[in-house]
Amino acid sequence: MNEQEAWKRLTGGAAARLATVDPAGQPHLVPFVFVVDEQSIISVVDHKPKRTRELQRLRNIAVHPRVSVLVDHYEEDWSRLWWVRADGQARVVREGAELEKCITLLTGSYPQYELNRPQGPAIVIDIERITGWSASG
Amino acid sequence: MNEQEAWKRLTGGAAARLATVDPAGQPHLVPFVFVVDEQSIISVVDHKPKRTRELQRLRNIAVHPRVSVLVDHYEEDWSRLWWVRADGQARVVREGAELEKCITLLTGSYPQYELNRPQGPAIVIDIERITGWSASG
Repeated sequence: MNEQEAWKRLTGGAAARLATVDPAGQPHLVPFVFVVDEQSIISVVDHKPKRTRELQRLRNIAVHPRVSVLVDHYEEDWSRLWWVRADGQARVVREGAELEKCITLLTGSYPQYELNRPQGPAIVIDIERITGWSASG
Repeated sequence: MNEQEAWKRLTGGAAARLATVDPAGQPHLVPFVFVVDEQSIISVVDHKPKRTRELQRLRNIAVHPRVSVLVDHYEEDWSRLWWVRADGQARVVREGAELEKCITLLTGSYPQYELNRPQGPAIVIDIERITGWSASG
């Protein structure tokens, strides 16, 4: 899959998975919703019930800002499988105009947020590398 | 979500995502198909066209055996979201009866493998911790 197609499929994805690395060097994995804004993947912490552990991702990013994001498609017909992976540097945005912009972007893309606007913090991932694979070539 | 339900949803998942950590400490993410056998998640490297980078997961496991696996469900109705994460120790099985057993388990679960039996190596992840979350509580 060429890079243009990878960007297109990443941008069109409704949900992705975020891999971070904890302070002890262990991987941590969560699903998340996001928007792509220019060269960045943006998400915000929302109101869904979280255990403390759920904010592990924020602590991990503070220590290990390099993260990996995967959008994939699975179905029984394996000739239609594909995935896109974006690797980059993450940072946590806790306040100010940039946080407001992130929240507005997410709320604009997900009507589910309209009745329950997320407050953040936001995670902004500056994409440094995007790769994709498609079974159909 | 209680642990019994998490095991059930993990076992019923058709595809998951594997997070490993590379020798430099960066996370790496790939989708994969698997079976759960007792307390382990089993997958095999198959015939799908791979670039060299694709076997990054094997090199990562050799250096950092701790991995994280995520099965999740996304749909527009966010009251139906759920995910299960399994963390554990991975090892690569390259030959012998254990490899044959892994291949037989995968081939038995995925008819897609019947015409194109995978040769491996296999990755066996001994699960040490399973956690799950469901929007419906």
